[in-house]
Amino acid sequence: MRRSQRKQEEPDLGILSSRTLFGLQRELFKRLSEQGHSQLRPRHGAVMAYLDEEGSRATDLAAQSGQHKQVIGTLVDELVELGYVERQPDPADRRAKLIVPTEKGRDQMAKSDAVLVEMEAAHARAVGEQAYADFKRVFKLIVERQTTTGQTDSSTAPPK
Amino acid sequence: MRRSQRKQEEPDLGILSSRTLFGLQRELFKRLSEQGHSQLRPRHGAVMAYLDEEGSRATDLAAQSGQHKQVIGTLVDELVELGYVERQPDPADRRAKLIVPTEKGRDQMAKSDAVLVEMEAAHARAVGEQAYADFKRVFKLIVERQTTTGQTDSSTAPPK
Repeated sequence: MRRSQRKQEEPDLGILSSRTLFGLQRELFKRLSEQGHSQLRPRHGAVMAYLDEEGSRATDLAAQSGQHKQVIGTLVDELVELGYVERQPDPADRRAKLIVPTEKGRDQMAKSDAVLVEMEAAHARAVGEQAYADFKRVFKLIVERQTTTGQTDSSTAPPK
Repeated sequence: MRRSQRKQEEPDLGILSSRTLFGLQRELFKRLSEQGHSQLRPRHGAVMAYLDEEGSRATDLAAQSGQHKQVIGTLVDELVELGYVERQPDPADRRAKLIVPTEKGRDQMAKSDAVLVEMEAAHARAVGEQAYADFKRVFKLIVERQTTTGQTDSSTAPPK
């Protein structure tokens, strides 16, 4: 059997994760585009997915998304330009900056969270609620394992 | 509860997939680097993960990896430069080219496949063999659902 055919029939964890991630991003950003957010691109998810209504520090966004702090800085520049976030002084540390969502940013965050809940609910209906809950539980364990064994950290760069 | 904290405690499918993918890439390319493949980067996985020993067409690699054909072309240029693949005429279609792994490429493919098998075996031991098999089964169903409902196709671009 050809290697590509074997990988099609018995996909490894990397193939399954990348298909899921890119497929989910494509669907999410298509729906967001229909809901008034046509200028956002999947890469902006590294900031928008983790942003707090109260504002977040760039270092926390880097750790949460697994992207370099430098990548986060570039994405924040783009999001400021597009009107989704603002840089404000951090009340807890006057030398630091907080990245705070604008009203447009908060709208995107709420819509994005709602689309993801809806997409996951559709998966759960299709594969069975219990099977989906078990899947999420094991998936979380695997992510935690990777993190503890040093397989994920903030220096992880995405594919370019 | 802060949004970021909620996402930490109850990560959605996008967060779980991206952490798994980037963590796995980081670990895989670290190990490959220790085994003589230090110049490869995670982005090259879009080609090397799907390449056949017999050679593959760029269009097939694009479909399998979910990357634009243009992205695949750039990656192949880099991999030719690094000595992992060669462009050869396709015996089945004289106007077409096949991307064929060199000996160095075949070495990387074998080592990469072996590392992934090992990483997955470690996950299975940690979460339980049956739980891991169930996890993979449901994961495959979800990927197939996304593909059928148009949530994944070859025009999906990765985060930059």
